[in-house]
Amino acid sequence: MATVSLIEYENASDEARAVFDDIKRTRNVKDVNNFWKALANHPATLKRTWESLREVMQPGALDPLMKEMIYIAVSVANNCDYCIHSHTASAFAKGMTPEQYAELLAVVGMASETNALATAMKVPVDQQFLAEAKNN
Amino acid sequence: MATVSLIEYENASDEARAVFDDIKRTRNVKDVNNFWKALANHPATLKRTWESLREVMQPGALDPLMKEMIYIAVSVANNCDYCIHSHTASAFAKGMTPEQYAELLAVVGMASETNALATAMKVPVDQQFLAEAKNN
Amino acid sequence: MATVSLIEYENASDEARAVFDDIKRTRNVKDVNNFWKALANHPATLKRTWESLREVMQPGALDPLMKEMIYIAVSVANNCDYCIHSHTASAFAKGMTPEQYAELLAVVGMASETNALATAMKVPVDQQFLAEAKNN
Amino acid sequence: MATVSLIEYENASDEARAVFDDIKRTRNVKDVNNFWKALANHPATLKRTWESLREVMQPGALDPLMKEMIYIAVSVANNCDYCIHSHTASAFAKGMTPEQYAELLAVVGMASETNALATAMKVPVDQQFLAEAKNN
Amino acid sequence: MATVSLIEYENASDEARAVFDDIKRTRNVKDVNNFWKALANHPATLKRTWESLREVMQPGALDPLMKEMIYIAVSVANNCDYCIHSHTASAFAKGMTPEQYAELLAVVGMASETNALATAMKVPVDQQFLAEAKNN
Amino acid sequence: MATVSLIEYENASDEARAVFDDIKRTRNVKDVNNFWKALANHPATLKRTWESLREVMQPGALDPLMKEMIYIAVSVANNCDYCIHSHTASAFAKGMTPEQYAELLAVVGMASETNALATAMKVPVDQQFLAEAKNN
Repeated sequence: MATVSLIEYENASDEARAVFDDIKRTRNVKDVNNFWKALANHPATLKRTWESLREVMQPGALDPLMKEMIYIAVSVANNCDYCIHSHTASAFAKGMTPEQYAELLAVVGMASETNALATAMKVPVDQQFLAEAKNN
Repeated sequence: MATVSLIEYENASDEARAVFDDIKRTRNVKDVNNFWKALANHPATLKRTWESLREVMQPGALDPLMKEMIYIAVSVANNCDYCIHSHTASAFAKGMTPEQYAELLAVVGMASETNALATAMKVPVDQQFLAEAKNN
Repeated sequence: MATVSLIEYENASDEARAVFDDIKRTRNVKDVNNFWKALANHPATLKRTWESLREVMQPGALDPLMKEMIYIAVSVANNCDYCIHSHTASAFAKGMTPEQYAELLAVVGMASETNALATAMKVPVDQQFLAEAKNN
Repeated sequence: MATVSLIEYENASDEARAVFDDIKRTRNVKDVNNFWKALANHPATLKRTWESLREVMQPGALDPLMKEMIYIAVSVANNCDYCIHSHTASAFAKGMTPEQYAELLAVVGMASETNALATAMKVPVDQQFLAEAKNN
Repeated sequence: MATVSLIEYENASDEARAVFDDIKRTRNVKDVNNFWKALANHPATLKRTWESLREVMQPGALDPLMKEMIYIAVSVANNCDYCIHSHTASAFAKGMTPEQYAELLAVVGMASETNALATAMKVPVDQQFLAEAKNN
Repeated sequence: MATVSLIEYENASDEARAVFDDIKRTRNVKDVNNFWKALANHPATLKRTWESLREVMQPGALDPLMKEMIYIAVSVANNCDYCIHSHTASAFAKGMTPEQYAELLAVVGMASETNALATAMKVPVDQQFLAEAKNN
């Protein structure tokens, strides 16, 4: 159970409704997800979060599916139940194949393992990594 | 400073040397990174980790650069210093553009924010997300 | 389902009952929460944890509501389901307003985003931050 | 060493300079911190992050010092080196006393301990917590 | 609900069945756990993960119960619901006593608290710790 | 650099000195580690933390070396630099062999990988795990 009420369109403030309208228009959906209904308790946070998300997730140097997959990776590492479900569904809706999903999870799992090993042994960063990053 | 010695090729066991040779051949490099030198203290872990990584990171349904970017995302969320440096450098070496890197970080940051918000409010998962995942 | 039995007062050991009594007296409640019933499987941990918590959460340089809000922030970042629910409820019981709660979440979300960005880019700490901390 | 160059004012794009100017004006400082110089590699992220942060951290139902202390709590739980340093310094600059700081850390430590214990035992959430959250 | 189907033996591919057979033989069980049924969607990941786990968890310098307890500790710190349940059950099945479990949790909780305190204060590592690690 | 001063014995308050004396006596060392010098800024936290740690880490159903290894596992998962260094050194000082250390790290790494995979796929907990935990 949520720690806040989920605000439906008919009970939302004018500011929240305007955001709901923009989400529905942008995503071509009939209703917004629970995440936005929860944020609608604080219209300023709803507005800011939506506008930031819309900007960040728009097509750019990375395509939208790639961005969804990165979102899944972070949500798994941060262990966000809601976000794992919502972004996995979104990625499938955007065309992620089962094989891509399987490889995504394999990378996430492998990274988690080597992250732990490198952290445990406090491996010093190789000089060449510092140089390569600097040149880009 | 590492919690273990970094084992150089000349001091490595035969089993470790065989892995070092495979890494150098596969990656076409003259020497292996510190991570592998640290793992060489336990040749079985070195061998298993390298073979898993080689399998996971090979080209497949996701291309190698995409896999590196997912690796960066997880390493940032897990806060692994060594891995952030090494995989950011690897991604640049594989052709990641500064614009792609910037968008990657923007997604990682945004995901971290909405992960925290959804977790804090314990937002219930929308039924449609469960259905969409199930159908894939 | 818990990995341990929840120990009710009537089944608790004498040492656990003494702690339960102190919790009920201190908080002016009729029964203790599930967290304490779970800890009662190991009276020494129950006693130590309660005594530490009572000391840490008492009014001091920070008032109890402020302390509850910090507790929520940490519990969200650590993703502790039980603790998010219990401390959000406690904060509301201590007078947290919906507006304060909304701002708390906004800060938690924003911090999570900039934490990820600063970690990803390995931003070097400004000299002045080191100096200011030192002088306090 | 950062994975990106730190962009100084004289090398910044017009869009980045406008943000730097706003930060300097808002905070009444001569130069911006390294975090903003790192973000200036991607002016859109710089602008969005600054505007969000400025909105979130402004005085409201919670005062600015309280917000800084919550920021520290999250940064510690997320283990962000840069953010721990910068927000601890900012909190001291805004008047946090050593006693307040000590109590803040005590709460962060205690929360981390009980978070782990509740997570380990999978303690079921008490019905009353759900009810109290709902009524607010 | 899982984001993938759980693959039962009768629907599994030949490669997945071979792994299921090995798990059942090695563990002397009639059916494999849900984790393996979920991984069976991608036989290569199923095979790699099982073979790595079998190697890592075999008796060695640390006995199997000790390894299960370390697995619990990591799973709690990473907050993995499934893994906390499965490895706590496995540890009990391997003879962990309630007293050992209680002490395990006490250490996990205490470590989480001092981890947070040391991280918050950025305590510099003592020279002697570096020297002791080096000599081993 | 620490965010607080490290308090040496000669500058410590009477309450802090009493704790320092107890640490030195209990551990048979000439000086306390930096962690305790940092905590000495707030004698109440110093006293409470030391007394809790002393109680938790004493020999019991788990021996002291086993407890140190669990402490390392948690510190790695929580990514606490100071704690990884100090508890790795302590474990070696208590007799941990290089082979035990290597197996500890292998388990920590493996657990991190399967934690991520189980979390990503939201694998439902097997009924038998719930039953086994309940019976203990």
